[in-house]
Parts: sequence; C-alpha cells; structure tokens
Amino acid sequence: MFSYPLHHVAVAVSSLEETSSLLELLTGESPSAVEEIPDQGVRVLFVGSVELLEPLNSETTVGRFLMKRGPGLHHIAYRVPDLKEALARAKSEGFQLIDEEPRKGSRGHLVAFLHPRSTGGFLVELVQAG
Amino acid sequence: MFSYPLHHVAVAVSSLEETSSLLELLTGESPSAVEEIPDQGVRVLFVGSVELLEPLNSETTVGRFLMKRGPGLHHIAYRVPDLKEALARAKSEGFQLIDEEPRKGSRGHLVAFLHPRSTGGFLVELVQAG
Repeated sequence: MFSYPLHHVAVAVSSLEETSSLLELLTGESPSAVEEIPDQGVRVLFVGSVELLEPLNSETTVGRFLMKRGPGLHHIAYRVPDLKEALARAKSEGFQLIDEEPRKGSRGHLVAFLHPRSTGGFLVELVQAG
Repeated sequence: MFSYPLHHVAVAVSSLEETSSLLELLTGESPSAVEEIPDQGVRVLFVGSVELLEPLNSETTVGRFLMKRGPGLHHIAYRVPDLKEALARAKSEGFQLIDEEPRKGSRGHLVAFLHPRSTGGFLVELVQAG
C-alpha cells in the first residue's frame, strides 16, 4: 500500500509580487524567497502550500498558459517518497509521463509531470522532497 | 496574527466515478462517499485533499465551467477558524465576496467564496470545519 499526500497547488500569475501580497493579506502566510528555475522557464515563490509561477518570458510553458487563459490554477503536486519508483508505477498504470526522468524543481526537490490527458484533465506533478 | 492553511483543492469533472478511480490509482487514497449539494448544483467526493465536483446539470456554475473550459482545477480552499470573522476581514482588506454570509458546504462545513477578480485570478473558498 502507498498513499501520496497533496504537497502544493501551483498558480500561474503575471506578477509574483502582486499575487503574493494578496495571498499574504488573505491568509496571513508570509511569502518565501523568490527562486528562478530556468529549466522550467519560471520564477517561483510559495505562500503556504500555494506555489506562484511567473513565466520568464512568453515562450515558456507557463507564458503560453498565461497568454491563452490568463492567470489561474496551473497544477497540483503530490508528495512521493521515491520519484523514480512513483514514475514507474504511474507509467505501468497507464498514466502518461511528461517527464520520463526526475528533474530539478524548486527548493532542491526532484519533480516530474504527468499529462492532463491521463489524469482526468489537470496537470499533476510528483515531488520527491530534496 | 492569523494563518489559514490550505484545506483542499477542487477539480471540476464530468464523472466523479471515472476521475476518482484515476486518482485512487495514482495516489493510493480511497475516495470518500459521494455527497450531493443541491445548493451548489454539484455532487462531490474527496480523494485525499482533492475534491471532485460533478455538476448536477449544465445550468449550474460548475456545469458552465465544464462547458466552457472542460474538466480542470476549479478552486482552492483555505481553512479558517471563524468564517464570519474571516469574511469581515477579507472584505475590509478589499477582497470581493461572492458569498456575504457563510453557507453550507460538503461534510457539514460552512463555506464562502471570494471572487477571482480580487484574488489574482483564481476562485478561493474559505472553509470553517463543521
């Protein structure tokens, strides 16, 4: 048996500073430091369990998401104990992997994404804490 | 000082049964029983911290969301100790309330929604555990 808890929810925004101020005001949680992840084309920060994603430019995945749909909920992330094992299991169950191998996420985590087509319509990230 | 933790993330789906099976397979979490909330025009269930929303018909808020955008992430919910107080605070800080008064949500909770326009682009629910 296994059980993956929710790790965070990510939101695409056009300004980390603006949205993090709003969330701090709303929830009382202080924003984390900003981290840039060139590999994923984003600047990110966390306010509690909510990750804000600001695209580095309009040609990135999050940049295109923003252009097409405006700011909004982008993906949910589950915490897994072993990402390689979790990817192998997900693949064997028929989930479509966007990342066949773990890659580096924010805060030293290892991450990988599953395609919305296979999850019921929403982007899912698996996270192994760094 | 106050601090509202994330309570759940909600996803609009066309079939509770299909998506909950997928999430159970992916995360190892068992789905809760289905609950119907006529007031919000949905059937809901939880798989871990993820709430699935299936519209009762296409004229409901979630029904229109599905028609327009297809299945996907719908809102995030923060847990608050006192919903009336939280709504008064949010309003005084400039957040736009969809519900001026708490109403009944799933599992006996009291809930109220804030307009995406005021939160940075995504629908936020405040939940007082029942």
